Amino acid sequence: MHHSLIADLLCAKAPMDSVTVCGWIRSRRDAKNFSFIAINDGSTRTHLQCVIDADTEAYANLGDANNGASVCITGSLVPSQGAEQAWEIHGKTLTLLGTVDPDYPLQKKRHSDEFLRTIAHLRPRTNKYGAMLRIRAEAAFAVHRFFHENHFYNVQTPILTGSDCEGAGEMFRVTSLDASAPQDANDFFSKPCRLTVSGQLEGEALALALGKIYTFGPTFRAEHSNTPRHVAEFWMIEPEVAFCDLNELMDLAERFVQSVIGSILDRAANDLALFDQFVAKGLLDQLKQTHANSFARLSYAEAIDILTQAKTTFAYPVHYGIDLQTEHERYLAESFCKKPVFITDYPKDIKPFYMRVNDDGKTVAAMDLLVPGIGELIGGSQREERQDLLQSRMAECGQKPADYWWYTDLRRFGSVPHAGFGLGFERLLMMLTGISNIRDVIAFPRTPGSLDF
Amino acid sequence: MHHSLIADLLCAKAPMDSVTVCGWIRSRRDAKNFSFIAINDGSTRTHLQCVIDADTEAYANLGDANNGASVCITGSLVPSQGAEQAWEIHGKTLTLLGTVDPDYPLQKKRHSDEFLRTIAHLRPRTNKYGAMLRIRAEAAFAVHRFFHENHFYNVQTPILTGSDCEGAGEMFRVTSLDASAPQDANDFFSKPCRLTVSGQLEGEALALALGKIYTFGPTFRAEHSNTPRHVAEFWMIEPEVAFCDLNELMDLAERFVQSVIGSILDRAANDLALFDQFVAKGLLDQLKQTHANSFARLSYAEAIDILTQAKTTFAYPVHYGIDLQTEHERYLAESFCKKPVFITDYPKDIKPFYMRVNDDGKTVAAMDLLVPGIGELIGGSQREERQDLLQSRMAECGQKPADYWWYTDLRRFGSVPHAGFGLGFERLLMMLTGISNIRDVIAFPRTPGSLDF
Repeated sequence: MHHSLIADLLCAKAPMDSVTVCGWIRSRRDAKNFSFIAINDGSTRTHLQCVIDADTEAYANLGDANNGASVCITGSLVPSQGAEQAWEIHGKTLTLLGTVDPDYPLQKKRHSDEFLRTIAHLRPRTNKYGAMLRIRAEAAFAVHRFFHENHFYNVQTPILTGSDCEGAGEMFRVTSLDASAPQDANDFFSKPCRLTVSGQLEGEALALALGKIYTFGPTFRAEHSNTPRHVAEFWMIEPEVAFCDLNELMDLAERFVQSVIGSILDRAANDLALFDQFVAKGLLDQLKQTHANSFARLSYAEAIDILTQAKTTFAYPVHYGIDLQTEHERYLAESFCKKPVFITDYPKDIKPFYMRVNDDGKTVAAMDLLVPGIGELIGGSQREERQDLLQSRMAECGQKPADYWWYTDLRRFGSVPHAGFGLGFERLLMMLTGISNIRDVIAFPRTPGSLDF
Repeated sequence: MHHSLIADLLCAKAPMDSVTVCGWIRSRRDAKNFSFIAINDGSTRTHLQCVIDADTEAYANLGDANNGASVCITGSLVPSQGAEQAWEIHGKTLTLLGTVDPDYPLQKKRHSDEFLRTIAHLRPRTNKYGAMLRIRAEAAFAVHRFFHENHFYNVQTPILTGSDCEGAGEMFRVTSLDASAPQDANDFFSKPCRLTVSGQLEGEALALALGKIYTFGPTFRAEHSNTPRHVAEFWMIEPEVAFCDLNELMDLAERFVQSVIGSILDRAANDLALFDQFVAKGLLDQLKQTHANSFARLSYAEAIDILTQAKTTFAYPVHYGIDLQTEHERYLAESFCKKPVFITDYPKDIKPFYMRVNDDGKTVAAMDLLVPGIGELIGGSQREERQDLLQSRMAECGQKPADYWWYTDLRRFGSVPHAGFGLGFERLLMMLTGISNIRDVIAFPRTPGSLDF
């Protein structure tokens, strides 16, 4: 079925005698001698107007087809009478490909996000979720392009892992056995298997051979958190860089976030406009500012001072040594810095064993990037490359070095300073679209009790 | 640690007074007044020669560091005396970043693939596995670039699925419970959860909104197959296209495979040369031919005729209705067609319910792409878009329509002809590199009993 994409036709330079479009009817208006139908094919948020004269076979084929029906129309592309777009189609032939049962749940009115989650298989056909998915795809490509241009190698670290102690949250278990016979020795891997929470450790092994790598794949958390910010399955981006310190890592993270925003501003303007207009007023301005201005940088100690002196009352009291809570993060990014801010050099007691201990012996070379409206977008660190210090930190954190034999090997054989960060792709999409519930930036979200699609 | 990549320095246009390189020593040769060390930083397969004069502090810092040690060298980039490359470095300063414990398993001799699998955390530092991983990364980007340029949207279909009957193989189960209390009602999703074997069904829902989509993500098989072609975790590429029939799908698959090969021939020539020279002689010629020539197309019935008339004796007897075995596939691609060949229109009895039934009522609009030396690279089909025929096929295949309520919805609401295929990324890499064991094209492969990294 050779046909043109509506996105291409809307950019046509001249009229065309014969073009074919295929898509779904989004609205229909009948006049005496013709029908107007608006067609969407997913290639753009904009519908293409088609005029079907009443005395044609095309009109007879259209029948009473309306919202949701699928059609294939051949006709001429001519300048549009209306002001909204440059081109429309005068249909010559029309094939009705698929009708719509009367219980079609997508009506022309606006549906709630809650309702649309119950029809995740159909919501991509709405303007909003179509736009979200197109932005998601463009952002994914922007991620790959940025790293490719900067000589990073895309690697795929394993999803199935024997590690149970990566320290980033509760893990799902994986088995090939019936639940009634769960003996690890008989199981697929002859030992307990879990779903990864991070590809970092394996990423380090690859960076210490290839120099600069990144992962972009699914990760999992078995946490029963029913919040607008948590899902059980999400995609993470994890670059890891050999011969890199914490400052260079922050430079990389800043350039990365700004590059992805720049790509979306350039290439997804039409879809972004929907979110600026209907979902988060001021979104475009905020993205442009984040794209153009350098990010702030504060040490954890400075951040604690700022929070202590803040006139705001926090639910969680502030003192040196606490884990920053969302309210603290938002104050720092939104009220104090009024832009994204890196917080660095956290006390080692609240950070995992693999982060590099600073010369003060008390803090680690860690950084979190806090973003207005989002909170933590990125977490990263320089890694502990010194074998003796790594092993004492493992002991302090209650880890068994034997569980990490290959990871410590990396420090015994040509160890080098290196650093990396993790960024949740869905958090990035929430920043790009202003969508406030993570369930609404994923095609088929996974949350406790929710596995229907 | 600002430094230049060796890949960039080797392309320098002129000498440079002061450059810094960081990397790992791959070999060292001591003369009376200087040492030659060859450095690799992962950015290219080619090592950079560095000359360190014996009367310098750099030389003192180098000490007896040898193969595997990590160094950072600043010096001048000057024309090389040797014939092998254009540039070398005369070192002025040298920092020894990391030494090597005496039990370093990577010696300068050639190691067996079997041995290297036991040190998967270190094998990326060898020439062969470094080259494989760079080709893998370039191929991954070529996949994304091809689809992006052709207006496909990259989507992420779920890894965790409630479906247990996708028909593509045995599935792993996922639980958040201890093995001792495996009651589904109490489990994370309140019902059985499994790891996906394919994103196709969800991909169809997205294609029927966005037009053209593709997935590129991990999939899983819990099959105890200890063969050179099977792993439990591998990455799949699955495009799905609305308004597309089987012939257009084959055109897409052919353009896609040729485009990825073209990208690798252009952009990974140095790494490909290693495989052509040491792993699979004739590889480059074969890739160039596959890139330049159209693929063959045969119906299943024609293929059976050809096999029946073949002078070869097959272990599995040939008659209409059989599933083609590897020996048959290889005969068709290697001996008969001598190039990649699509086999189409298989009997419906050996294919899943979702494939579109042809007008003969006996075959389905399926296609497999068979490639010399590889066997099946791609499997795809036009999907059954007709609600009544889909439901009778489900019944024939013993599936319960209720398990697919949302999938059948897609046929009730604006159904359209559509088609898609799946391609195992690792199979593609085996074709691109000539590597014959799938364990050797994955950084950390997962096979029965193997979960150490």
